[in-house]
Amino acid sequence: MRARCYNIAASKVDAKRFKLTLEYDGGAFQGWQRLGEGLSVQGVLEDAVAQFAGAHTDVWGAGRTDSGVHALGQVAHVDIAKDVNASRVRDALNALVRPYPIAVLEAEQVTADFHARFDAVRRVYWYRIVNRRAPLALEQGKAWWVARALEADAMHEAGQRLLGSHDFTTFRDSQCQAKSPVKTLDRCDVMRAGEEVHIWCEARSFLHRQVRSMVGSLVEVGAGRWTSADLKDALEAADRSRCGQVAPAHGLYLARVDYPPDP
Amino acid sequence: MRARCYNIAASKVDAKRFKLTLEYDGGAFQGWQRLGEGLSVQGVLEDAVAQFAGAHTDVWGAGRTDSGVHALGQVAHVDIAKDVNASRVRDALNALVRPYPIAVLEAEQVTADFHARFDAVRRVYWYRIVNRRAPLALEQGKAWWVARALEADAMHEAGQRLLGSHDFTTFRDSQCQAKSPVKTLDRCDVMRAGEEVHIWCEARSFLHRQVRSMVGSLVEVGAGRWTSADLKDALEAADRSRCGQVAPAHGLYLARVDYPPDP
Repeated sequence: MRARCYNIAASKVDAKRFKLTLEYDGGAFQGWQRLGEGLSVQGVLEDAVAQFAGAHTDVWGAGRTDSGVHALGQVAHVDIAKDVNASRVRDALNALVRPYPIAVLEAEQVTADFHARFDAVRRVYWYRIVNRRAPLALEQGKAWWVARALEADAMHEAGQRLLGSHDFTTFRDSQCQAKSPVKTLDRCDVMRAGEEVHIWCEARSFLHRQVRSMVGSLVEVGAGRWTSADLKDALEAADRSRCGQVAPAHGLYLARVDYPPDP
Repeated sequence: MRARCYNIAASKVDAKRFKLTLEYDGGAFQGWQRLGEGLSVQGVLEDAVAQFAGAHTDVWGAGRTDSGVHALGQVAHVDIAKDVNASRVRDALNALVRPYPIAVLEAEQVTADFHARFDAVRRVYWYRIVNRRAPLALEQGKAWWVARALEADAMHEAGQRLLGSHDFTTFRDSQCQAKSPVKTLDRCDVMRAGEEVHIWCEARSFLHRQVRSMVGSLVEVGAGRWTSADLKDALEAADRSRCGQVAPAHGLYLARVDYPPDP
């Protein structure tokens, strides 16, 4: 009996922690976070892990993307109590999340102290506008359609005024739960690519709906309704009522999350 | 009375012919062609024109794309018996085709002898493959997912063997209604773009499913199952049973249709 108990204990392998890089179509989900009965990216992944590993385990994401917000490179971590390698984890989860539009691009074994959310040192968001007279057909739900001609150069110039550490209350959703409204914006580039206008924002972390609020206000500049100085004034007012429109979720992509290099 | 009759006759304006450049998501339709009860691009456009102009009018397309095949630049023509300019036609049709994923990118008045199908001198197709281990999330229904690593250079080299005038029976659907299986292929370029492989084919006209049949066979080469010589042999056999797989419709885009310059 003693020997048998010992064998059972030995077969209980230690959990391994895996870092997952994820792509998903946010339009299919209520958002990243599992909340009640709605379909969430986190919930679908946790169900897949439970099927694979035989027990429920939390999946932690670097960013809790809103409903409609897409990911090209969300990062999450999960502990799996099974003697498997990273490529098996990737392929198994990809098979188990079907038919939902989530893809595990990469799985990588990491040390047990890695945390997708708390260790992230940079989050990169991409916002995609299609700027043309005709509505969207192929890109419905994948970009924001703006019919009025936008001056991308003016938007870029205005965007530079948002760089640095500021109280971003103007560009913060009223439901935002962050303790402080002060964030440091490291990049806000706006560039035209044919009939599209692309906006890239980088920071260690963002307030809730900060990117969509900034993009909506930059579009006010691009459309000629605001000057670059109006944008700066709105920022300095630290007053949510001074925000322009909030850009729709379906144009926003969590493009990349960076971590410190291994020591 | 005579004067009044004259006025009524004068108010019946001559029909104007418009050339329409169209984008659509082929996944929503049974194809271009109106056939029975199914949803077709042609049918949705003809319904919109009928609502706009008050009478049914045929809409003629340059290419009768299959179900699932997308368009970035399909061309069609239609006669509208209403005194309107081209930008009004574009905007009205865009409003009336809602909520279907069709966009009129451009409308242009043309002479009454312009014919979208018979006057076309070049059709350009783009085929999009995503070549990676992970399944598709954001691009589901918009590209062909091929997990096995493809050699794009080998595909390109093989593609050059298809150029010129040939009996393309090997790459022709058994339902194809063209009188002759001889076509002239002017371009077949294959190039890698990151994790994607893009194939561009140009010809005055194509046989039914010719591009998808050629792409499926090129993938046999890219995956190392066929040599470039095998592809050439298959072409020369002029035998449908020698075709490789037929690539799925949802990776194919009718990218552009060219017409002779105005005299």
